[in-house]
Amino acid sequence: MNVVELILTKRDGGQLEPAQIHALIDSYTAGDVPDYQMSAFLMASFLNGMSDEEAVALTDAMLSSGERIDLSSVPGIKVDKHSTGGVGDKVSLILAPLVASCGVPVPMISGRGLGHTGGTLDKLESIPGFSTNMDTRAYREQLERIGVVMIGQTQDIAPADRKLYALRDVTGTVEFIPFIAASIMSKKLAEGCDALVLDVKCGSGAFMREESSARALAEKLVAIGERFGKKTVAWMTDMSSPLGHAVGNWPEMAESIACLRGETVPDLMEVTLMLAAEMIVLGGRAETIESATEMAQRAISSGNAFEMLVKLVEAQGGDPSVLDHPELRSHSGVVRVVTAPEESGPYVDTINALEIGRACVDLGAGRSHKEDVVDSLAGIYLLKKESDSIASGEPLFELHASSEDRIEIIIDRVQSAYSYTETLFSVPGRLQNRYAEGAWMHPVGNPSV
Amino acid sequence: MNVVELILTKRDGGQLEPAQIHALIDSYTAGDVPDYQMSAFLMASFLNGMSDEEAVALTDAMLSSGERIDLSSVPGIKVDKHSTGGVGDKVSLILAPLVASCGVPVPMISGRGLGHTGGTLDKLESIPGFSTNMDTRAYREQLERIGVVMIGQTQDIAPADRKLYALRDVTGTVEFIPFIAASIMSKKLAEGCDALVLDVKCGSGAFMREESSARALAEKLVAIGERFGKKTVAWMTDMSSPLGHAVGNWPEMAESIACLRGETVPDLMEVTLMLAAEMIVLGGRAETIESATEMAQRAISSGNAFEMLVKLVEAQGGDPSVLDHPELRSHSGVVRVVTAPEESGPYVDTINALEIGRACVDLGAGRSHKEDVVDSLAGIYLLKKESDSIASGEPLFELHASSEDRIEIIIDRVQSAYSYTETLFSVPGRLQNRYAEGAWMHPVGNPSV
Repeated sequence: MNVVELILTKRDGGQLEPAQIHALIDSYTAGDVPDYQMSAFLMASFLNGMSDEEAVALTDAMLSSGERIDLSSVPGIKVDKHSTGGVGDKVSLILAPLVASCGVPVPMISGRGLGHTGGTLDKLESIPGFSTNMDTRAYREQLERIGVVMIGQTQDIAPADRKLYALRDVTGTVEFIPFIAASIMSKKLAEGCDALVLDVKCGSGAFMREESSARALAEKLVAIGERFGKKTVAWMTDMSSPLGHAVGNWPEMAESIACLRGETVPDLMEVTLMLAAEMIVLGGRAETIESATEMAQRAISSGNAFEMLVKLVEAQGGDPSVLDHPELRSHSGVVRVVTAPEESGPYVDTINALEIGRACVDLGAGRSHKEDVVDSLAGIYLLKKESDSIASGEPLFELHASSEDRIEIIIDRVQSAYSYTETLFSVPGRLQNRYAEGAWMHPVGNPSV
Repeated sequence: MNVVELILTKRDGGQLEPAQIHALIDSYTAGDVPDYQMSAFLMASFLNGMSDEEAVALTDAMLSSGERIDLSSVPGIKVDKHSTGGVGDKVSLILAPLVASCGVPVPMISGRGLGHTGGTLDKLESIPGFSTNMDTRAYREQLERIGVVMIGQTQDIAPADRKLYALRDVTGTVEFIPFIAASIMSKKLAEGCDALVLDVKCGSGAFMREESSARALAEKLVAIGERFGKKTVAWMTDMSSPLGHAVGNWPEMAESIACLRGETVPDLMEVTLMLAAEMIVLGGRAETIESATEMAQRAISSGNAFEMLVKLVEAQGGDPSVLDHPELRSHSGVVRVVTAPEESGPYVDTINALEIGRACVDLGAGRSHKEDVVDSLAGIYLLKKESDSIASGEPLFELHASSEDRIEIIIDRVQSAYSYTETLFSVPGRLQNRYAEGAWMHPVGNPSV
């Protein structure tokens, strides 16, 4: 393989053969191709584009660079879900035990938060004792035993992706759909699931701010999944305002516990129930989205979904007592209720998700750098959401932090994330478009697709 | 400076401020910006383009990375010439002593050959004892004393260019006009000349094969030169076939000696006399190209130009005896005369410069890699040139090498570089377009521009 010739091919707008992409990624992972050649290749591909065939080959090469977990010994159709990340996006915390309680095995490998978006691992670890480190054997055994397992990515999964991501991060080559899709899918395909539901967030608080790029990513993810023989469904969902009321690690865990116990958080549960229904159908436990949705609702009302969370927490070393009394943990540390300023109202119009996410990082709940330690308890409770009525002086949001100083820094930022309107309006749903097998539909207002 | 933001600006089609380019190049030269970020920047610039302002800033930053030689103490308008490189391009060897003998000081800093193109330094060093290493003080003193000096680039000149070129070479970012122009001009501006004549080669044996890219490079070189206050003239000249009869280091030196002694090699002397005339006009020794051309012709016929070569060789430690009897040196080693094959003729049509250049490398006269040692005596004499009549069995070319094996390898290649025609034709001139002060003209057939 002549690396310069591969760079020249992409520079001049050509396409590479799958074998060439495999050779390049293998040599790069082995350290035989230096970073400076790979970064030239990345930039040339970024600017001149990559075909679906190239994106599939890139995914396959990154997948092949590490371990592929074999879950074939576990009975049932294993279904996982992945979100591209948002603010207040705690869907996985509710979804995994919920879907597992409906009889679909859920093997979930998640990441940590970085920047303004939170990470499922950090939220799970806000439960005292909960461990997200597990070897492959224990991962498979727990999935078989209780039907759900939630861990972090091991060093053995897709090492090429880890090395490439670090390079993309410092060479301006992150925001390119084929790279993003290959990165997500190489990890998801390695974890052994049979089918996959993807939540592609779109809006100010999402990685994809524009509908066109969210759509392109959703389509690419589905195309890659299908090429690898995995049934793949993607939903584009709105992330212009935070999902639910809680933003922060334990705050989101607490809200998830509440939802599994039957509390109603409309925007959060709209997304969660749709993704749950998709997973239940893919897992072969229901024929239609409608019957799957009813099955999920029954799992919550019967307490089965919450019971599955208890089993999950116990299996991974967490303290299950916080599940019964989350409010005790939620009121430790410094808590400040902030009221609406003058000339607020009469209705909340929008809450800027990006600003809330950034404020949360400053509050100590997130990471600016990979090495940062997160404060599990820190976070923001949005007491008022879109279209809620509000008058100045009424409680607007609640801040939780380790010190008053942390709180003072962000009050103005959170205040200005809110905008107000004179007119009462009905909040549009979060579900936007559904992508499956290369086609996409507009099922908004008609979720029984 | 945030390097990633500079990369993103170029990636997204924006323009950088001169101060940003300076900061980037300074930090890269100092080792503070890693190669992998610079290569992403290079590829983004390559694919999205660079403005004239950016190219000027890049030139200035590379120029400022090293020493700028001050020749203001040397009387006269110092004029240098640079060629983008070709096959059989020995113009500098004739031009420098010729122009100096007309009273224009010529400070010339040249490079070595790489790939199929030869280098002035290697040709000069084919004179036994001739040294091209000299410090700045000696360089200035020799220029003042005899009016001409020809050396190699010192480590102190444009170190940023050296580092960047090595990176471009392995990241597919060589063939980009603004980079090429900045690289040439940063070195030429550092050497202390007041005016500059550029020979931009175009054709199969040149770096720029297409007329459009040769024109773009010529225009960019002139634009940059003018921005730095140097009178700059560029000629686009044809390099589809080798210039003159000799290709190889000593072979070209010998042909140059012959030309300085009055031998007529039409294509070679057409280019040499035009560039000499341009330099003589820029140097203030003649008013018009016509009178300058006559002055140069007289310098040859009077022996003054040859005398200047003798002075140059003596000043730089060379053995001047080879100048009087170059034929003795030319017939050492293995010499093979190759005759025209069957069905050749009746006239030579074209001689592919690239193939001749590559054959010369295989013969030992050139370098595939920077570290290769060149065989000074090896080379090819084209006994027949375009439009010469030829019949099978007549001598076609002569090969000089260190062994019969070297010769056997390339005979077929040189044979097939020749093509033949049934029709006698007049050879078109080598001079194509002239570029000066941003304008370009077609002076072919009317050299007195």
